[in-house]
Amino acid sequence: MTKTEFRSTMTVELIDHMGSDESIARSARVSSGTSGTEEQNVGLLRMLMRDRHGSPFESVTYQFRIECPIFVAREFFRHRIASYNEVSGRYKVLAPVFYVPDPDRPLMQIGKPGAYRFEPGDNVQKAVTVRAHIRAAETAWDYYETLLASGVAREVARNVLPVSLYTSFYVTLNLRSLFNFLSLRWAHEDSKVPTFPLKEIEAVAKDMDRLAREVCPVAFEHFDNHGRVAP
Amino acid sequence: MTKTEFRSTMTVELIDHMGSDESIARSARVSSGTSGTEEQNVGLLRMLMRDRHGSPFESVTYQFRIECPIFVAREFFRHRIASYNEVSGRYKVLAPVFYVPDPDRPLMQIGKPGAYRFEPGDNVQKAVTVRAHIRAAETAWDYYETLLASGVAREVARNVLPVSLYTSFYVTLNLRSLFNFLSLRWAHEDSKVPTFPLKEIEAVAKDMDRLAREVCPVAFEHFDNHGRVAP
Amino acid sequence: MTKTEFRSTMTVELIDHMGSDESIARSARVSSGTSGTEEQNVGLLRMLMRDRHGSPFESVTYQFRIECPIFVAREFFRHRIASYNEVSGRYKVLAPVFYVPDPDRPLMQIGKPGAYRFEPGDNVQKAVTVRAHIRAAETAWDYYETLLASGVAREVARNVLPVSLYTSFYVTLNLRSLFNFLSLRWAHEDSKVPTFPLKEIEAVAKDMDRLAREVCPVAFEHFDNHGRVAP
Amino acid sequence: MTKTEFRSTMTVELIDHMGSDESIARSARVSSGTSGTEEQNVGLLRMLMRDRHGSPFESVTYQFRIECPIFVAREFFRHRIASYNEVSGRYKVLAPVFYVPDPDRPLMQIGKPGAYRFEPGDNVQKAVTVRAHIRAAETAWDYYETLLASGVAREVARNVLPVSLYTSFYVTLNLRSLFNFLSLRWAHEDSKVPTFPLKEIEAVAKDMDRLAREVCPVAFEHFDNHGRVAP
Repeated sequence: MTKTEFRSTMTVELIDHMGSDESIARSARVSSGTSGTEEQNVGLLRMLMRDRHGSPFESVTYQFRIECPIFVAREFFRHRIASYNEVSGRYKVLAPVFYVPDPDRPLMQIGKPGAYRFEPGDNVQKAVTVRAHIRAAETAWDYYETLLASGVAREVARNVLPVSLYTSFYVTLNLRSLFNFLSLRWAHEDSKVPTFPLKEIEAVAKDMDRLAREVCPVAFEHFDNHGRVAP
Repeated sequence: MTKTEFRSTMTVELIDHMGSDESIARSARVSSGTSGTEEQNVGLLRMLMRDRHGSPFESVTYQFRIECPIFVAREFFRHRIASYNEVSGRYKVLAPVFYVPDPDRPLMQIGKPGAYRFEPGDNVQKAVTVRAHIRAAETAWDYYETLLASGVAREVARNVLPVSLYTSFYVTLNLRSLFNFLSLRWAHEDSKVPTFPLKEIEAVAKDMDRLAREVCPVAFEHFDNHGRVAP
Repeated sequence: MTKTEFRSTMTVELIDHMGSDESIARSARVSSGTSGTEEQNVGLLRMLMRDRHGSPFESVTYQFRIECPIFVAREFFRHRIASYNEVSGRYKVLAPVFYVPDPDRPLMQIGKPGAYRFEPGDNVQKAVTVRAHIRAAETAWDYYETLLASGVAREVARNVLPVSLYTSFYVTLNLRSLFNFLSLRWAHEDSKVPTFPLKEIEAVAKDMDRLAREVCPVAFEHFDNHGRVAP
Repeated sequence: MTKTEFRSTMTVELIDHMGSDESIARSARVSSGTSGTEEQNVGLLRMLMRDRHGSPFESVTYQFRIECPIFVAREFFRHRIASYNEVSGRYKVLAPVFYVPDPDRPLMQIGKPGAYRFEPGDNVQKAVTVRAHIRAAETAWDYYETLLASGVAREVARNVLPVSLYTSFYVTLNLRSLFNFLSLRWAHEDSKVPTFPLKEIEAVAKDMDRLAREVCPVAFEHFDNHGRVAP
């Protein structure tokens, strides 16, 4: 039996990008036919963000490669203004890499939908959680290998695998769509609108924010300053 | 322990719809400012389909409710010109309903990606497949219940569940997007472009086709006659 | 020469619709697997609007027929999450119906982009405005007819016509996309985010709001109460 | 009065781009987890195009700047899977640049919608066409300037201008959306599906094709070889 591997982290790589703060300003300025200095562009981008002139932010595009568990990818793919290519369990024998919560992952959910609080969980809960993730994954992987060894098609065998299995995909999206993703998937202290993201997708969002921010730092600064609501 | 349930079928219900063959014709005729008899509309819809004038087909919209395994929903949600609301494992204790292939499900995959053929599989393969699906599901469900009983959050506990678990969702989409879905997810004998859908999503596509067809039979007839390519 | 006609008003007809407040609630409740009374649905829709759970609002769809000048249609068609079918100057001899501002249309623009104020304009400005609209339209129409009479193709002849010419189109869109349209195209007193729409598209937005509101009054009430920002 | 200017040409500039043939291959290969040589990528892209695996082509994005008459922009903006920023007649005093057909522009339209043929037109038709375009533009521009001189708002004054007026805009779109645009807006000899584009937008499409092709020549070669249908 192939040895299973367990991870708690997500992988986010910036593969490619197009555009910059300057592209956003240039696209916006076509409407008025003006040009501006770098300093004036800062003010222009602030105004675009404040008044929800969102279309110039679509001039910046990114491609990322993401590794995360299926249960995270399931939430990610609900964002429709983006392009996806993902590992296929039909075309490929999958790799035995599974998610297990790290000790800092809050385990207790208190309150009602829309207003959950999370608390760490005690040592018994931590132990049960880690054990269940590992055993469920190992058992499932064992069945998966058995099915493949019996000559059963990959697309049937993979049905037994849990949503904690890691998948990987490329996502291409523009900055406006990324801002929308970040506004919903990161409960940032600057967020004006409350959001309750799953911790694991929040980890992905944080990495995307950090990498994408370098491409157009002024746009991100205004995003932060205007409550992290997508324009 | 709650008793697990196993199914091989998909559920597709047509919840609501808007428009008809007549709506498609009316939307198309605005461009030329003409009106037409029912018989002339048949010819008009044929021409729209043949010449890929797709936008009038967006006048018809549907809402469906679907029950299917997560591995099917994962493929479904890749269709971005549609609206989705799905059961959430964060908000709800999930129900122990799992997929198991029925005896007719082909189990052997032969050939290369893009040109797979499928064959039934022998009795050993059938037995191994059913057993693996059932045992993997039961084991996972056992861990899920243990985690919940220990007070672990639903959104953490569900990680151990397999992609064979049934989910349910509402999908709202227009006829043009539906045609695209059907062209890719049903290897219909009238299809001009070859496609290799997963059997389980093909079952969903067939039901959607049957229900949607009653709303605008002429549009569907031309879709069949023009190779089942979305206009 | 065909007699030209001048209008100041817009036409907005609700042709068809799908769904209701109940549909929105039903789509939202699939996530938690609950059901609720009509009164509980009111609270649910409030929560969806407040917390920007936008997808359930996509369960309601509308088809409208609009008559407006080309310069209004040009702004309307920038809304991409919608389906359009419009009169074609290539396929049809156009009708000589043109826009002229009515006496209440503010004519003076004061201030800077992003912060314009408008004032009525004096009697000279009103007279010049009406005269210019009428004469420009009549002159253009004369050239259009001359070109057609000379056997020149409709698609070439129409180039001489002004953007004040009326066009008509069908638009199909869902409630979430409509809320976004309304948030940008009507400077409503309840709007939390400032917007500076063109008066003529604002007239269209007001009519769409009035007609669409009857289909799902609870959703619209919460839209108003939450600053008319699309969820 | 400002001197009016007349053009028959379109301007298409490639401002920025992301990705390459290699990006398309890399995105596609994530599904099977394989890698390949440059030569194998050529075969892979062929297969993607043939079997309509369209999503990897969304890994390549472009930004163009376009100058064209309003009647061309009106058709262009019907392509919704793209991002636009355009000159605004509300924010800017427009420039007096107008379209006039060049001597090669076919002027006679023969046949029915969906099956038009075009013929050159005789010398009288050519003269009438040029004269009507010039006179209509000059008259309209005269009214526009009179209105501005009277202190009437730009957004009102521009109503008198014809759709032959040049506009300019930035458009950002991915390769898959571009292929769809090209399939509909260029009646290319390799096109498998008949299309009847307006000559003036066809000129834009040809320039976009030429510039975009350099970024990913293999993808474009397969597009040509597979009937110029978007995957």
